[in-house]
Amino acid sequence: MMRVGIAVKPDAPQAPAVLTRLVSWLIQRGLWVAIEKEAAGLVPGCPAAALRKEDLPAQVDVVIVLGGDGTLLSMARAVGDLGVPILGVNLGGLGFLTATTLEEMFSAVAALLAGELEVEERMMLAARVRRRQEAIFEHVALNDVVILKSAMSRIINLAVSVEGRYATAYRADGLIISTPTGSTAYSLSAGGPIVFPGMDAIVLTPVCSHTLTNRPIVLPGTHRLEVTLQTAQQVMVTLDGQVGIDLEESDTVEVWQAPARIRLVRVPQKDFFSVLRTKLKWGER
Amino acid sequence: MMRVGIAVKPDAPQAPAVLTRLVSWLIQRGLWVAIEKEAAGLVPGCPAAALRKEDLPAQVDVVIVLGGDGTLLSMARAVGDLGVPILGVNLGGLGFLTATTLEEMFSAVAALLAGELEVEERMMLAARVRRRQEAIFEHVALNDVVILKSAMSRIINLAVSVEGRYATAYRADGLIISTPTGSTAYSLSAGGPIVFPGMDAIVLTPVCSHTLTNRPIVLPGTHRLEVTLQTAQQVMVTLDGQVGIDLEESDTVEVWQAPARIRLVRVPQKDFFSVLRTKLKWGER
Amino acid sequence: MMRVGIAVKPDAPQAPAVLTRLVSWLIQRGLWVAIEKEAAGLVPGCPAAALRKEDLPAQVDVVIVLGGDGTLLSMARAVGDLGVPILGVNLGGLGFLTATTLEEMFSAVAALLAGELEVEERMMLAARVRRRQEAIFEHVALNDVVILKSAMSRIINLAVSVEGRYATAYRADGLIISTPTGSTAYSLSAGGPIVFPGMDAIVLTPVCSHTLTNRPIVLPGTHRLEVTLQTAQQVMVTLDGQVGIDLEESDTVEVWQAPARIRLVRVPQKDFFSVLRTKLKWGER
Amino acid sequence: MMRVGIAVKPDAPQAPAVLTRLVSWLIQRGLWVAIEKEAAGLVPGCPAAALRKEDLPAQVDVVIVLGGDGTLLSMARAVGDLGVPILGVNLGGLGFLTATTLEEMFSAVAALLAGELEVEERMMLAARVRRRQEAIFEHVALNDVVILKSAMSRIINLAVSVEGRYATAYRADGLIISTPTGSTAYSLSAGGPIVFPGMDAIVLTPVCSHTLTNRPIVLPGTHRLEVTLQTAQQVMVTLDGQVGIDLEESDTVEVWQAPARIRLVRVPQKDFFSVLRTKLKWGER
Repeated sequence: MMRVGIAVKPDAPQAPAVLTRLVSWLIQRGLWVAIEKEAAGLVPGCPAAALRKEDLPAQVDVVIVLGGDGTLLSMARAVGDLGVPILGVNLGGLGFLTATTLEEMFSAVAALLAGELEVEERMMLAARVRRRQEAIFEHVALNDVVILKSAMSRIINLAVSVEGRYATAYRADGLIISTPTGSTAYSLSAGGPIVFPGMDAIVLTPVCSHTLTNRPIVLPGTHRLEVTLQTAQQVMVTLDGQVGIDLEESDTVEVWQAPARIRLVRVPQKDFFSVLRTKLKWGER
Repeated sequence: MMRVGIAVKPDAPQAPAVLTRLVSWLIQRGLWVAIEKEAAGLVPGCPAAALRKEDLPAQVDVVIVLGGDGTLLSMARAVGDLGVPILGVNLGGLGFLTATTLEEMFSAVAALLAGELEVEERMMLAARVRRRQEAIFEHVALNDVVILKSAMSRIINLAVSVEGRYATAYRADGLIISTPTGSTAYSLSAGGPIVFPGMDAIVLTPVCSHTLTNRPIVLPGTHRLEVTLQTAQQVMVTLDGQVGIDLEESDTVEVWQAPARIRLVRVPQKDFFSVLRTKLKWGER
Repeated sequence: MMRVGIAVKPDAPQAPAVLTRLVSWLIQRGLWVAIEKEAAGLVPGCPAAALRKEDLPAQVDVVIVLGGDGTLLSMARAVGDLGVPILGVNLGGLGFLTATTLEEMFSAVAALLAGELEVEERMMLAARVRRRQEAIFEHVALNDVVILKSAMSRIINLAVSVEGRYATAYRADGLIISTPTGSTAYSLSAGGPIVFPGMDAIVLTPVCSHTLTNRPIVLPGTHRLEVTLQTAQQVMVTLDGQVGIDLEESDTVEVWQAPARIRLVRVPQKDFFSVLRTKLKWGER
Repeated sequence: MMRVGIAVKPDAPQAPAVLTRLVSWLIQRGLWVAIEKEAAGLVPGCPAAALRKEDLPAQVDVVIVLGGDGTLLSMARAVGDLGVPILGVNLGGLGFLTATTLEEMFSAVAALLAGELEVEERMMLAARVRRRQEAIFEHVALNDVVILKSAMSRIINLAVSVEGRYATAYRADGLIISTPTGSTAYSLSAGGPIVFPGMDAIVLTPVCSHTLTNRPIVLPGTHRLEVTLQTAQQVMVTLDGQVGIDLEESDTVEVWQAPARIRLVRVPQKDFFSVLRTKLKWGER
């Protein structure tokens, strides 16, 4: 019997109604269903099991995420290296990560259960903060690792080494280290290129670089980076904009390709370029 | 008798020696000299008067600033609408605001005292923060008024009206409202154009705009702007990167051309384009 | 009796029908009407006078342009310094220069005849090509003066002086010298800022600059420029993308603010920011 | 016995002297040397064999290119799929492709002959122009395939399909399809990212896109592209800026990864980032 987990963006107004309908629909089809504990409160009396977000992925064969790209990013980190595929259903507009909209949810889930949908793998990044030889923070990210100064701080200096060799330095507001998946998120706003999501690549995009020649760089996914903060300013490193830690002068952020890949369920008519055309209004001025 | 004020960047290593020599040089020429109180501690026994930074401009005919662009920006706000001309001497490399380098300091000051140097006027911006109909903060800026989210916050929404009429909205990390003088500072890092410093113009440059079509805009200096924060995130407004205040949702930042202009002493061979060529390495790849 | 001239984009499919209706409508109201000779062929038997485009402006009190921004640019150059106001009616979508759409044409023309519409003045550029001390080409432009290499040529070198003093050099595909009006046209595609159309300013935007620090510059409208081609490549200078001439090595293009301004009739609800929001899809991602 | 071919930039002033010295040096070491026929005229009486550029690669074990990146690009196309390694010696400054400068030429060639230098492989692009089902042009490129309008033409429309599926359309001056090697050449001037040269990737960078949201895209090297010209304007396709053909409306340019790779001899201390730092002046403002 297939086991389906459901995560939901709790503050989405449609969340309770959609969740109730989806759980019934799945149980009627004889599936075992678990929902995130946080979401269980939205639907009292729901016949699904309630599990903590971090325990959910290990108990299910697939996770359906009802929400936006942010909800999916959060679940991707919880899935980590378990390899459980994720189907994203966007409760708002169209997302880069969410494969389908609410209108098409049931037909997409039916196709998923029938084994008719492909799963696409995406690389993730692992990041570790080292302070005086000690690792004080370690997490994975599907979109990006971002080192950014606070609003009142001055420009910061970052020294970057690639594969153990000094590569370059940035005088900037910050630096975005992005996967191809993240290339259409924050990195794009900062002037980075769009990278095809199936590629193994790491994009370095500075934020407001003082040095005007410091342009975005695309590196092989296998390259290992170390970024050292050389300024005593208020600076944070954040992963997918969701978890993070304050940095001190001389802290080093190590970034490398995570051993596990995230597995996203794909709806065939939503290929990458059709999403780009819709989201970025290509074809219009 | 001419009265000369001196401000100094306190943590510049050459500051005490330069200050001592400059004060002697001026007093030998029969001038009355006052230095900033904070600087007086650097040169014990100095024969110059010591005044608080905010009191200095009213007591002198000209201010010599020893430091970088930051020291000069700070003095510019202290001068406010008093019209006292400022001569900037750069203790480091070459600045956009500082007219001369340390090597040429004495010849520049001699030319200044002989009335041989031109004074160039630059517009400044006034900014006021309005919270629930009440003005809670008001300052002037020579470079820019910057509204920026904190490192951990998400994208913010800003609604901008120009001359009392809704103009546009930004979904971005922030917004830089810059004078022509400030166009070569933070605005340039964020993708803004270089604006000739003598012009009356206001540049709006978004920081990491989510909307890719939101390009920098140059408005007449006479246009009055209101920027309203429409998001409950951690956001600051800062002036010249030196003074600032946290913003709350629905706060409005009003920005308009300050009635006073700052008066900068100009050394003729350092025209605007020669500074651009040197600082931006034009003419090389 | 008011005299109305009409210019029309000849290959617009709606042109004959719209022209016939507009001429009747104007004659019924007792006005004298002249149309461009080229357009007269589209409407045989039309009761309007037919004049050559270059003779039309001198014979009328206002010109109505039916077409897009290109048709209006062409008429603007024909009007030159005569000061005849132009009302642009866009036969396609919405233009930056054309004040109104076809649907609103009659109400806009009625308001125009009733004297209810404002006229807004825009600066133009004059350009002259000097070859070995001799002027070989001179024209005005409402949008821009563009110096551009041909597809097969290599990068070109351009030396720019401002107000008679060497300013900078470009190694690039070309250089756009734009009015504020032209800042939303080709200059925008090349990375230039948007400049409020009523301003007196000149924008220098390089095309594909080899020197990455060569950013767009905004100068006062009163500044006089000289651009000298320093490379023996196939290069053209074009005005508003409509008239032009091949350049040779050492040719100089002089550019200055034209003494005359173009007068555009303005429909009040189409202010500059509303056009930007519509054309650039601001407010959407 | 090792056979060495030499190509040279004919108009470089140092070419005859350098060529004479290099040939003597090689022959003294007992090597067989051939030079390009065009270069033989520069050094009358030279004891090296003279071969046409297109015949040279098949007769030698290694080619030394004396010149700039352009001379090397031209030889790379002549080498095609023969796999002969190329050592570039820059007669001017420092190039992205040329591994060494004139000063270090003999030590680099000595290391090469001693088998102490690594060879690095770079992908190339193949391009074919199809007109009414017929292939009328086919070439390989090491840097880029560029489709560009002429100076006087208006904006062009290009439809792009990727892997046989419609991807996007451009309204622009043109489109650059670049290898990682070419990412630091023309594509960089047009706003493209820097891509690590060993990667298998194709960069699409529009030139002066009218659609402001059309950002550079990085695709896997295995993706096959078709670009169809949808406008009747004067347009060319050029490869490495050196060979090309005029396009007509409805012509399609097919681009795919060339089966052969070019083999560049690498001097260890000139790693990619050190070249970037030197050429782009990173580390300075």
